[in-house]
Amino acid sequence: MIKTVGYGARAATSRLERMEFERDDPRPEDVVIEVMFTGVCHSDIHQVKNEWANTVYPCVPGHEIVGRVTRTGDKVSRFREGDLVGVGCMIESCRACEPCESGEENYCEGPNGWLATYNGPMVPASGAEGGENTYGRDNTFGGYSSVVVVPEDFVLSIPDGLAPEAAAPILCAGVTTWSPLNHWGIGEGDTVAIVGFGGLGHMALKLAVAMGVEVTVLTTTPEKIEQAKAMGAHAAYIATDKTSLVPLAGSFDLILSTVPDKHEVGPFLDLLKRDASLVVVGNIDIIDGVDNSKLAFHRQSVAGSLIGSIAETQDVLDFCASNGIAPEVEIIDIKDINEAFTRVENGEARYRYVIDMSTLG
Amino acid sequence: MIKTVGYGARAATSRLERMEFERDDPRPEDVVIEVMFTGVCHSDIHQVKNEWANTVYPCVPGHEIVGRVTRTGDKVSRFREGDLVGVGCMIESCRACEPCESGEENYCEGPNGWLATYNGPMVPASGAEGGENTYGRDNTFGGYSSVVVVPEDFVLSIPDGLAPEAAAPILCAGVTTWSPLNHWGIGEGDTVAIVGFGGLGHMALKLAVAMGVEVTVLTTTPEKIEQAKAMGAHAAYIATDKTSLVPLAGSFDLILSTVPDKHEVGPFLDLLKRDASLVVVGNIDIIDGVDNSKLAFHRQSVAGSLIGSIAETQDVLDFCASNGIAPEVEIIDIKDINEAFTRVENGEARYRYVIDMSTLG
Repeated sequence: MIKTVGYGARAATSRLERMEFERDDPRPEDVVIEVMFTGVCHSDIHQVKNEWANTVYPCVPGHEIVGRVTRTGDKVSRFREGDLVGVGCMIESCRACEPCESGEENYCEGPNGWLATYNGPMVPASGAEGGENTYGRDNTFGGYSSVVVVPEDFVLSIPDGLAPEAAAPILCAGVTTWSPLNHWGIGEGDTVAIVGFGGLGHMALKLAVAMGVEVTVLTTTPEKIEQAKAMGAHAAYIATDKTSLVPLAGSFDLILSTVPDKHEVGPFLDLLKRDASLVVVGNIDIIDGVDNSKLAFHRQSVAGSLIGSIAETQDVLDFCASNGIAPEVEIIDIKDINEAFTRVENGEARYRYVIDMSTLG
Repeated sequence: MIKTVGYGARAATSRLERMEFERDDPRPEDVVIEVMFTGVCHSDIHQVKNEWANTVYPCVPGHEIVGRVTRTGDKVSRFREGDLVGVGCMIESCRACEPCESGEENYCEGPNGWLATYNGPMVPASGAEGGENTYGRDNTFGGYSSVVVVPEDFVLSIPDGLAPEAAAPILCAGVTTWSPLNHWGIGEGDTVAIVGFGGLGHMALKLAVAMGVEVTVLTTTPEKIEQAKAMGAHAAYIATDKTSLVPLAGSFDLILSTVPDKHEVGPFLDLLKRDASLVVVGNIDIIDGVDNSKLAFHRQSVAGSLIGSIAETQDVLDFCASNGIAPEVEIIDIKDINEAFTRVENGEARYRYVIDMSTLG
C-alpha cells in the first residue's frame, strides 16, 4: 500500500480538510504518479457539496492532474520513471462496449460506465444491472492528493513546451470543449459562440481561435468583455443584453454553452444558423427554454457532450503545445482550497485555480 | 377574379362557416386547381383557434390539397388542364436565400419566410426587417375551398396509383415525417421510435417500415397498440408505461415525436442510442424535460424539423405510389368539419379526416 496525503470532504456540508489514506500498490499495468499540480474544476465543488446527489464520502476531488512518474508496473510500456504525465476525468472504462472499442471511453456503456478519477464509477453498483461492480470499488480518490495510481492507458503524456501547471486544466476544461468543437465539425472560417467565460469558456476560446474560428464570447461579467477580446475573441457581449444579441441572429455554426449551472438557452437559439447545434457541456440537469417554435424553423439541435476520450485528451494537449496555448492559471496553496472554492462559486476566478501540490507538506 | 367558396373562421372562438371570396386571376406562372380533397391537419385547428397567437382572420385552413388543374398561366410548362395535382403547406418562398437556393424552401430565410398556403407569410410584414412584405399579402386562404391558385413550382404531381383522397395527407403528414427520417440518415436496418400515433405518426410508421426500418410505436391510446402492429410496427407500447420502456433503453437511432401539443420528452431520451437524436415535428413551443444529465452522457440531441421541401414532397408522393403506401383516411362532408375538429382534438380520428370538397355544394 502507498501512504497518501490528500484534501477531501467528509460530508456535503464539510470544508475540505487534510486526510491520510492508502492507495493500492500498482498492478502490472499501473503507473504511480507523484502529483505536482491539480486544477480546480467547478465539478469538484458540485461533487464535494453533493449537488448532483451522488457523492460518496469521503470525497477527495481533482481530475486535472499533472505529475511525475515514480514507478511503473511490469507491463507498462509507454511510461517510465521521471516522465511528466497527466490524468483527467477517467481512470478506467469497461473496454468492451461499442464506445470503448471505438475509442470513446467517455461514453462507456459498460455496467458501471467509466471509472471516474474521483467519486468512483459513473454508474454505481447499486444502479447497474444485477448490482454489478466491475471495478471492485465504489469510490475513488482524485488528485487533491500526493500520489495517484492509474492504468497506463488512462495516463496522458505532457508534451514538451507545456508547463506542468498550464497542462493541468487542459485535462478537463480543455478536452471538454475540444471534443464538441471537433465532433460537430468546426474548423477554419466557421463561427462559434461561447456562452460562459470561465475555466472552460476561456479554453474554448483559445482552442477555437487557434483552429481559425471566428469566436464570439457571451458572458455575464462586464470586465471579461475586454479580457475575451485580448484572448482573441472576434467580439464579446453581455449574454443577457438582448439589444446586442439581435444583430447576431442566425450567425453561428455552433454555440457551446459552458455555464456550469442551470440556465435558459432560448435567447441563444435565435443566434444559430440553419442546421446548427447548441451544445451544453455542463451537467446541468434540465435545459430550460428549448423552444421548438425556434428549433423547428431552422432545423436546429440542442445537444449534450461529456468531457472527451483519452485520444482526444492527448490530441488537445499536443495541439496546445504546438500552438502555444496555455490556460490562464493562478497557482494556489492547498491550504487555501476552501476559499478558492468560494471564489469559483462567486465567479471570481481568472480563469483557473491550479493547486501546487508541493504545498501539501 | 375567381369566385371561390370556402369554409373559414372569422375569429378564434368561431366555428368554421361557409364563406365566399375571390381569388386573383392566375399570373403567367400560376396553376388554377379545382379542389377535390383536403386533409384535416391538427395544425388547422391550432391556427383557426389562434393557439399560436398569430392567426389572421378570416382563416380558411387546409394545406393537404388534391385537385384537378382547370387552367394554367402562359409560362406554366409542367402542368396542363386535367392533371391531378397537389398543394402542401407552402405556395411561395423568397427564392433567393441560401435554403431556397439549395432546395429547402421550408427553411426560407427571406424577409417574410415562406408563404404559407393559409394564414399568409411565416414572418408577417410587421415582424420582418423594415416591415417588408415581399408577397404583397398578409393573409392567404387554404384548401377548405373550391379553388386554389398556386405558382407551378409549388404544385406537386400526384403519381399514378395514388388515389386523390389518399394523396392529400401525404402533402403534410407524409412529408413532415419523411423529411426528418431522411435528413437524419435513417435507412434499412435502423431502429426508430415514433411517439404519438395519429395522422403524422401513422404515416411515419408506414414510411419507415417501407424503408426497411424496425419501428416501435409509443402511443397513449391502448386500442392503437394492435392497430400499429397491423400497420407493420415491430412493437408498440403505451408511452407512459415506464415498465415497458425500461428494456428499450439505448435502442433507437432516431425518435420522432409527432405529438401536436406540449409534452415531456425526458423519459424518451433514455431510449436513444449514443449520438442519436429525438426530433420533434410539432410546433409545440417549449420542449419539456430536455435533461442534459441524460443528453451529455450519450452525446444525444433534441432537434426540431419543419414540414419538408417541395422536392421532398414530390419524393414522398412518388415513394408512396411505388410502395403501395396510403394513409388511413375517413372521408367527411365539409358540413361536418366542426365536429371533425372536435374529434381530432379528442384523439378520436383514425387516422386522418379528408374532406370531400364536392360537398361544398
